[in-house]
Amino acid sequence: MNVEFINPFINATINALSTMASVMPKRGAPFVKAGDEAGGDISAVIGLTGEANGWVAVCFKKEAAIKIVSNMIGEKKTFIDADVRDAVGEIVNMIAGGAKGEFAQKNLTFKIAIPTVIIGESHILSQKKDAACIVVPFQIEDSSFFIEVCLVQEKDPAAGVK
Amino acid sequence: MNVEFINPFINATINALSTMASVMPKRGAPFVKAGDEAGGDISAVIGLTGEANGWVAVCFKKEAAIKIVSNMIGEKKTFIDADVRDAVGEIVNMIAGGAKGEFAQKNLTFKIAIPTVIIGESHILSQKKDAACIVVPFQIEDSSFFIEVCLVQEKDPAAGVK
Repeated sequence: MNVEFINPFINATINALSTMASVMPKRGAPFVKAGDEAGGDISAVIGLTGEANGWVAVCFKKEAAIKIVSNMIGEKKTFIDADVRDAVGEIVNMIAGGAKGEFAQKNLTFKIAIPTVIIGESHILSQKKDAACIVVPFQIEDSSFFIEVCLVQEKDPAAGVK
Repeated sequence: MNVEFINPFINATINALSTMASVMPKRGAPFVKAGDEAGGDISAVIGLTGEANGWVAVCFKKEAAIKIVSNMIGEKKTFIDADVRDAVGEIVNMIAGGAKGEFAQKNLTFKIAIPTVIIGESHILSQKKDAACIVVPFQIEDSSFFIEVCLVQEKDPAAGVK
């Protein structure tokens, strides 16, 4: 995977959360996923096709999702309900859409599928073994979330990296 | 969602599992997902773009995944390990690829992203509220799995159906 593919997703994440939820998450160092380092209690994933094929996901610990969504919708949430699910799907949509826009400025074209939201305590996401996945950890107050980007270019020499 | 979109996925599922895993799952009646009826312990989802945008997922109860994958790879599995994850990702890839081929015969063009595998006991998948999702249940011996198809055409009048 071309590591330059990751920055537009980071920028879009910070932009989406700062404008929509008035939170400024603290970004940690991105790393190549080797096992089950990431994961969360509520995630959303969206497929991408075009310049490369793959997906971007955002994986929240429960507390982070509730904090962010409460801010987004202006209503204090205490558990994961339909509003939180919808908002988490919308967040991954905004991340993919924002990144798509930044890629377009570089003449890189992507199409975006629609989000799948995953609910389940401590679930993990996993990519196929011949696809590299970059994880970016974020901290918000005393909770955390990750974005995970997995993109494979058809002739990408790095596609064989696990 | 155009309900004619569902048959190619059903055909591809039966074809993939009968040829790759020598199992003939018993199909139940498809239904429109209204809540949390489906879900599983290991799932794989793959994004689709083109004629419509969305995703197809296959959601296995643990026992069904282990049975199918043991058959696929010719090695008895007893828990969800890396081989089971990879095989479940490959199954959704085959389902999407098979359906893509059947759609192509009708001049409907789709592009396929790459699979995300989700591991977590009793997790559920959820779609955005303005997207219809069709669930097809399958029985295999004394366990079960589902396929879920969520596709939205940009001008689909049914896209507003929850």
